[in-house]
Order: sequence, then structure tokens, then C-alpha cells
Amino acid sequence: MFEVIFDNGKPLTERVSSQIIQMVQESQLKPGDKLPNEFDLAQRLNVGRGTVREAVKLLVSRNVLEIRRGKGTFVTERVGVSDDPLGLTFIRDKHKLATDMQDIRVMIEPQIAAMAAARATLDDVAEMRRLCAEIERLAPLGEDYQEYDVELHTCIARSTKNIVVPNLIPIINKGIALFMDLSNRIYWPDTLKHHREVVDAIERHDPDAARSAMLCHTMLNRQCMESIQKKMQSAQ
Amino acid sequence: MFEVIFDNGKPLTERVSSQIIQMVQESQLKPGDKLPNEFDLAQRLNVGRGTVREAVKLLVSRNVLEIRRGKGTFVTERVGVSDDPLGLTFIRDKHKLATDMQDIRVMIEPQIAAMAAARATLDDVAEMRRLCAEIERLAPLGEDYQEYDVELHTCIARSTKNIVVPNLIPIINKGIALFMDLSNRIYWPDTLKHHREVVDAIERHDPDAARSAMLCHTMLNRQCMESIQKKMQSAQ
Repeated sequence: MFEVIFDNGKPLTERVSSQIIQMVQESQLKPGDKLPNEFDLAQRLNVGRGTVREAVKLLVSRNVLEIRRGKGTFVTERVGVSDDPLGLTFIRDKHKLATDMQDIRVMIEPQIAAMAAARATLDDVAEMRRLCAEIERLAPLGEDYQEYDVELHTCIARSTKNIVVPNLIPIINKGIALFMDLSNRIYWPDTLKHHREVVDAIERHDPDAARSAMLCHTMLNRQCMESIQKKMQSAQ
Repeated sequence: MFEVIFDNGKPLTERVSSQIIQMVQESQLKPGDKLPNEFDLAQRLNVGRGTVREAVKLLVSRNVLEIRRGKGTFVTERVGVSDDPLGLTFIRDKHKLATDMQDIRVMIEPQIAAMAAARATLDDVAEMRRLCAEIERLAPLGEDYQEYDVELHTCIARSTKNIVVPNLIPIINKGIALFMDLSNRIYWPDTLKHHREVVDAIERHDPDAARSAMLCHTMLNRQCMESIQKKMQSAQ
């Protein structure tokens, strides 16, 4: 088969991966759905199997597809969103990053809470209650509750029913993880109180109260982070 | 050379690409800097050149490295941030996406403007003035000013001096592009007035005024988007 390596200045792999994306969209494949096999893809797109393999690899690296060994190629759960969409891994100054990330959380999470208060369903609130209870059980025992903390903030983001907000979650998660790492997972009773206040306000469908409670919560984290960094600087 | 294909469950390519990232960070390579050639990389990392090539490809697809033909491999300008960090390409309902993106802009841009008002330098403000003037020159002629509009919002984001905010820019850009596409680049005189008001407030170092002006600006876009969509629905 004759293959053109460059087309409109775009390498063939890029072009074929765009075609695969188009095919996924046109066949209305959803997250978790399986793609046709390599042989079928090669025939449909009129390219070699090696090219299909390269294009699939590219889409795997972009979090669009995932290969499950022995099972085939599937559309990922959070299509096209990497675990680190903002490339924070590559920011060298981790201390400034930790503080600046808290500013990002202060910037976006209160608004997300307000949106959630306007649109959360009874099921959403029940899930938030379950997560709060789990965090409140673990925190006093000194156990790691980061996973549930992340899940709670994720649940609040989903409750907004805005289709872009859930894709901001990896950013928020990164902020929570940075905070947890530097604060040595110290148990902050105020955090649990704030969580409850946010969820109470969402349940009452009171956007202003949800915004204020989340502002308190994220501001507290920001202040903790500042005082941790001051201590570290004076200890040097 | 003997190569282990899997190590701790991670494919070799993944592991080598992590090592390249580590090397970039340790040698303090900055955006735009050149990497050692394939041969040197293979020797340093003690793997074959084919593996280095695969790992570099992976990092190119993740926007960490770029290959300039005949010149070598370089660190990209916005390391690790894709043009579409939130995977919006994969959201099928483009109309809901367009409205929801305006909500995201309403959510984050006023806060960015407030931060910029606190920290913008004289040079930042001069750049904003230059971009406003360019937009004001083009818009009444019916010419496309999207590029300058994006640059203005980018300049405001950079002026915050928060190291994470500039990485949110592709998200904002996507919002602007969606708005421009659906609004058919109609010339909204109010937009230009709002731009001026935002920049004036930033120049006066007045965060509250900057926040309000940007809120007006993004809210207007949101309303325009809503009325466009209503018209389209009633025309169907």
C-alpha cells in the first residue's frame, strides 16, 4: 500500500489519529466503549496497520484511548483530559506552586459550590453526606482521608451539571494533593466543619452560603500553607 | 544491549520518558532550550536509540518536547500544557459546551482581573493598552480581532504573577474561540468598552473595580451566547 508520509504538513500519524477521533465521534462511541480492531481500522482508514498502531499510541498518550491487554482498545473514561492538564509537573518551584495552587482553589471552588447549590440533586447531596461521614471517621484516627476529600470536591463539581467543570477536577485534585503533602496530612478540625457547612448550604440550595463556606474552606488551606512555608523558611 | 521491557509495571517508553523529564528538570533546561542528541540521550539513560526515539515521541505528544526539523529536540514554550487541556474537542454537545464555557469564564476571569490589578507592572499595562488599541482599530472595520482579544486576556492572566494562572489560558482561549465562532464575530461595542474598563482598573491597582468590569464583560458574552442559542432554537 502506498502511504503519503506528509499531508498538508501534518505527519501521517497525526492525520490518522484525527480520523480515529472523528470516527469515535461519528459512531457515537462513549467512554468505556470498544474500538474496532487494528485490522478493521486500517481498512476503514485506508492506511497500514503500522500507521494505525502509531496513531493509537498517540491517542493513548493523549488520554483519548486506552489499551486493555488481551481485550482491545477502548475510549477512556475522562476522554482527552490528562491527570495533569496544566503541566504542573514541570513547574520547578514547588513551594510557590503549592501556594499559587491554593489561590487557584480560592478562585474557582467557591463558584463551583455556588453553582452546585443551584443544581445539585438529592442523590448528589446523599453522596456528599456519605463522603463527609467517611472523612469525619478517618480524620480523628489520624488516617489518610485524601482520597475521600478529593471525591467530595469531585462530587460537588459534578453537581454543577456544567459539562466543563468536571474536567477542572484534576486541577483541584492537584491542589488538594499538594496541600496534603506539605501539611503532612495534619488533622484540621476546621476543615471538617467547613465541609459540613458547604454541604448544608448546597442541600438548602443556597448559592451564597455555599460560596461563603467554600471560600472559608479554601482560604483556611491557603493560610495554613502560608504559615507552613514561613516556618520552613525560618527553620532554614 | 539488554533492555527490560517492563519495570514496576510501567512500559519502558514511559519510564524513559520520565527519566528525560527528570533530566530536563535537573539540567535546568528552560522552554526553548535544546536537548542532547539521540545518541547522547541513549548513552546517558543506558537504553537503545529506538527507545529514546519512542520516549521523545511520547513527550512530543504530551507537549513537553518539540522536534524542529534539522535542528534537534527542544523543550516547548508552554511545557506539558496541551492546546486543549480539558479535552473539550471530545464533548459532543457543542451548544451546551459554548454556554457552559461562558460560565467557566464568568467563574475565573473576574478573579484573574482582580489578581492582575494587585500585581500588574507598568510594562504589563502598556502591553494591555497596545492590544486594546489594536482591537479598537480592527473591530469597527469588521475585521477579525480574535487573536488580539486572546492576547489581551493572556496578558491579563500573566500579570497575576501566579505561576498556575497562565496555564489556564488555553481554557479561556477555547471559551473566546467558541464565542467568536457562534457569534459570527459580530462587533459588540460594549466589549471594547469593558476591555477599557478592565485595563483602567488594573492600571489604578483597584482589584474590586477590575473584578466588576471583567464580570460585566464575561456576563455580557454569556448573555449574547444565550440569545444566539435561543434564536437558533426558534429557527429550527
